[in-house]
Amino acid sequence: MDCIFCKIVEGSIPSSKVFEDEFVLAFRDIQPAAPTHILIIPKKHIATMNDVAEEDYAIIGDIHRAAQHIAREQGIAETGYRLINNCGTDSGQLVFHIHYHLVGGENLGPLLSKA
Amino acid sequence: MDCIFCKIVEGSIPSSKVFEDEFVLAFRDIQPAAPTHILIIPKKHIATMNDVAEEDYAIIGDIHRAAQHIAREQGIAETGYRLINNCGTDSGQLVFHIHYHLVGGENLGPLLSKA
Repeated sequence: MDCIFCKIVEGSIPSSKVFEDEFVLAFRDIQPAAPTHILIIPKKHIATMNDVAEEDYAIIGDIHRAAQHIAREQGIAETGYRLINNCGTDSGQLVFHIHYHLVGGENLGPLLSKA
Repeated sequence: MDCIFCKIVEGSIPSSKVFEDEFVLAFRDIQPAAPTHILIIPKKHIATMNDVAEEDYAIIGDIHRAAQHIAREQGIAETGYRLINNCGTDSGQLVFHIHYHLVGGENLGPLLSKA
């Protein structure tokens, strides 16, 4: 499987890991868009939100449990953060292994850049 | 409870509803930031992502199941969409009843406005 995030899960590509459990891995984005910018991914390969199957919703819950935990650990739980999932072309999704961006550490501005 | 989204759930404040099931309600944002801009909320009052408790993760799954369904119905599943949760001050969260923004229908630009 030629998926960069699967390779990060396997450890064959390095990452700046901030959290790991049985189902979820989180690491710093290599091109941060905010002072805190972490990617949270399932270890299971799921390409996009459209591909989340009935048996995968528990993993979506695991990702959110991890997000809460990481936000506290990174000191942004109280100041605030944004969780973003991009799905498909219009969103700018670049890696087709589902991932949530956890961003914070400053005022994040409007919901969309043109809003 | 003086929560505008709880009042929308009860029906005492009107909304442009696009989806409803036992646990989730979705309606159009009154100030859309994109051609498709829908808010997906749990019927249960949960203030922010920080307040999601262990028993609420199933609801987070329900919200994502609804998001997939709505994206298909609104014709943006293939063109792409972004799911966004704002938590707290730095994110610009305005209503303290957890909600996911489902936005799509055009190129959504960068992840953050200043990125």
